[in-house]
Amino acid sequence: MNDNLTVLKYGGSSVATIDKIKEVAKYLKYRSDKNGKLVIVVSAMGATTDSLLANIHEITKNPDDEHVATLLSTGEQQTISYLAMALKDLGIKAKPLTGFQAGIKTTKENMKSSIASIDKEKLEALLEKNDVLVVAGFQGINDDQEITTLGRGGSDTTATALAATLDCPCEIYTDVSGIFVTDPRMYTDAKKLDMISYEEMMEMAFLGANVIETRSINIAMNYNIPLYIAKTLSKEKGTWIVSDENLLEKHIATGITLDDEVIQVNIKYGAYDPALTKSIFSLLEKNNISIDMISQTESAEDNYYTFTAKLEDKRRLTKTILTLKKDYPEIEVKLKEDFVKVSVIGAGMMDTPGVISRIFQTVIENDIRIHQISTTGISISCLVKQSEGETATRLLYEEFALEKE
Amino acid sequence: MNDNLTVLKYGGSSVATIDKIKEVAKYLKYRSDKNGKLVIVVSAMGATTDSLLANIHEITKNPDDEHVATLLSTGEQQTISYLAMALKDLGIKAKPLTGFQAGIKTTKENMKSSIASIDKEKLEALLEKNDVLVVAGFQGINDDQEITTLGRGGSDTTATALAATLDCPCEIYTDVSGIFVTDPRMYTDAKKLDMISYEEMMEMAFLGANVIETRSINIAMNYNIPLYIAKTLSKEKGTWIVSDENLLEKHIATGITLDDEVIQVNIKYGAYDPALTKSIFSLLEKNNISIDMISQTESAEDNYYTFTAKLEDKRRLTKTILTLKKDYPEIEVKLKEDFVKVSVIGAGMMDTPGVISRIFQTVIENDIRIHQISTTGISISCLVKQSEGETATRLLYEEFALEKE
Repeated sequence: MNDNLTVLKYGGSSVATIDKIKEVAKYLKYRSDKNGKLVIVVSAMGATTDSLLANIHEITKNPDDEHVATLLSTGEQQTISYLAMALKDLGIKAKPLTGFQAGIKTTKENMKSSIASIDKEKLEALLEKNDVLVVAGFQGINDDQEITTLGRGGSDTTATALAATLDCPCEIYTDVSGIFVTDPRMYTDAKKLDMISYEEMMEMAFLGANVIETRSINIAMNYNIPLYIAKTLSKEKGTWIVSDENLLEKHIATGITLDDEVIQVNIKYGAYDPALTKSIFSLLEKNNISIDMISQTESAEDNYYTFTAKLEDKRRLTKTILTLKKDYPEIEVKLKEDFVKVSVIGAGMMDTPGVISRIFQTVIENDIRIHQISTTGISISCLVKQSEGETATRLLYEEFALEKE
Repeated sequence: MNDNLTVLKYGGSSVATIDKIKEVAKYLKYRSDKNGKLVIVVSAMGATTDSLLANIHEITKNPDDEHVATLLSTGEQQTISYLAMALKDLGIKAKPLTGFQAGIKTTKENMKSSIASIDKEKLEALLEKNDVLVVAGFQGINDDQEITTLGRGGSDTTATALAATLDCPCEIYTDVSGIFVTDPRMYTDAKKLDMISYEEMMEMAFLGANVIETRSINIAMNYNIPLYIAKTLSKEKGTWIVSDENLLEKHIATGITLDDEVIQVNIKYGAYDPALTKSIFSLLEKNNISIDMISQTESAEDNYYTFTAKLEDKRRLTKTILTLKKDYPEIEVKLKEDFVKVSVIGAGMMDTPGVISRIFQTVIENDIRIHQISTTGISISCLVKQSEGETATRLLYEEFALEKE
């Protein structure tokens, strides 16, 4: 681990105005004096992307991905220029770098692209000559030298990938002050975590916590890079996301999440038919529909598959089912949208017997019915009625999270 | 000459709004259908650069050139994206290219940089796969992969350099409808030229016509690329700038220009002193001061050098004279700012005796005094009192330009 280097990332609302950029520069001056070399990753200034998108809308309904990526990437390029100027004004030698200048190579597609490689030697040479590198997040260049933009959470991915390449910690500054046991908008007393393991954070992100995308956590985990989430320009301590072995004790419940963007699919068919089973899951895969909480039920006459999918995939899911029904007209399919998924996440639960039982008791005692349940090594998820989701989350928070005190 | 290819350039006011960009795209669709492949060079949308500069002003008084170039280059990058989208919406396969993507290498300096080379093979390969390339003007990349911006008239230079590289004509669309014999703002009846030679246009640009910079004309002349100047989206015919041999007849006066940004310098010294002469002109060169209209006068006791310089160089000129006076305290220097330079330009004047005499007669008959006169092969310039400049220009226009009818 490189102790003389830190990657820090600031999102669009943190650099929304010239004044905010100047404030961030002042903090970075302090960090540069204290911590040595810095690599800063920034997004486009708050409203920039929206105004560029509005202009596109005036031109065409069906823009080309490359044209859009070329346009949107100017947003971050403006932020790196302004931040470098503000740093220079404070006496710091800062170098602005677009995605291609930072040597961020991506896969071919122009939008929702993925980072393929980063030019480590180039960055190290630039770090020799400068105090701070200011890198445009969310963008890169493909093998055809076309400008590309990354998928969701793109700038976080840029930051963690840079930290992984340079083997140093990565600090993500955002609107929220860290990772909470449960959503603080819902449960205002929710506790903030000082530390959480990569695995737990992955589960939490996957199960509905929106602070950081799984892609970034995955990179940090693979390269064992400490990831810090905190509020921009706040003195409040944030949350470190680190490897399991750095955690002093494993909690049963590190997090309780509520995901209300789920759809439950129930497929009823007759006698067991391996060809049908294969068809269902290969069609879902082919149509790029992620599924979760699969359960299978067999009875004398009928067999059932039940699983959940993301609400945003509903259109593709419906099409997939229509295709399936052409080949298997006898099957019955039900889609239910009035469920939400409540999950308890904690690396300690696999060593603690009876967690499922405690979940059932807590929920059922309060007249809430669990319609489906599934488990992974470090999480247990339950489907409950939408109207009962918040209550179930609170009950589970009180049952598990508060016992840690 | 490549007949199936044209470079067209649109400046900032031609692409000032999304609506204007869409109108330009419609015209380019027509040209693409009619003329084959096109390379379009665009500037930043009208007000973009000003708003970026205003933001810089909020951050620092002393920005770094590289930071400024990185910022300003986003302006053209946005225009190429929008224009490519608008072209695609009309069914044209258009590829947006930033300076570095177009392979435009420049010299090292980040601002006021010069084009060093253009990647011809890359552009030809891209032209195979696309109908139209849309290239960001005014920008390039240096050997350190830093973004650079070109000097004055930068986008015109990009366009002519691309045409020179690809060996095809270059059309510059702008606010004015072509090259006029004399400034149409001053002399509203001024005739527009159908054709003018590179050499004459160079003289006119050098002597005060602001339509196009000498840099672009120079490139076109060196590579023998026809250059066309016309008004954006107008049906009015513009002016072709071509080689001398393409002109059917050489006019005595192709143009009459008025330059009111001149300063006259008069140096009086004693006996002839070669060391002093060397000092004067080497100091001027070292301080990057262009001079014009040099004349030398010798008398029994005293010797004089008289020349003109640009008003914008006044500060540096004054400093240079102070340096000179340290070594030669005996010299007397006068700076006069109340003169203007009126010039008659025409490739035909070297074959026509008596042009100087006609100039003197025309001007003197109207009680205007010529304070200094100088000639090149294709131009004659006179210094007259500022208050008499417009009258002298009109008189000379009537004497020479109207006889061509």
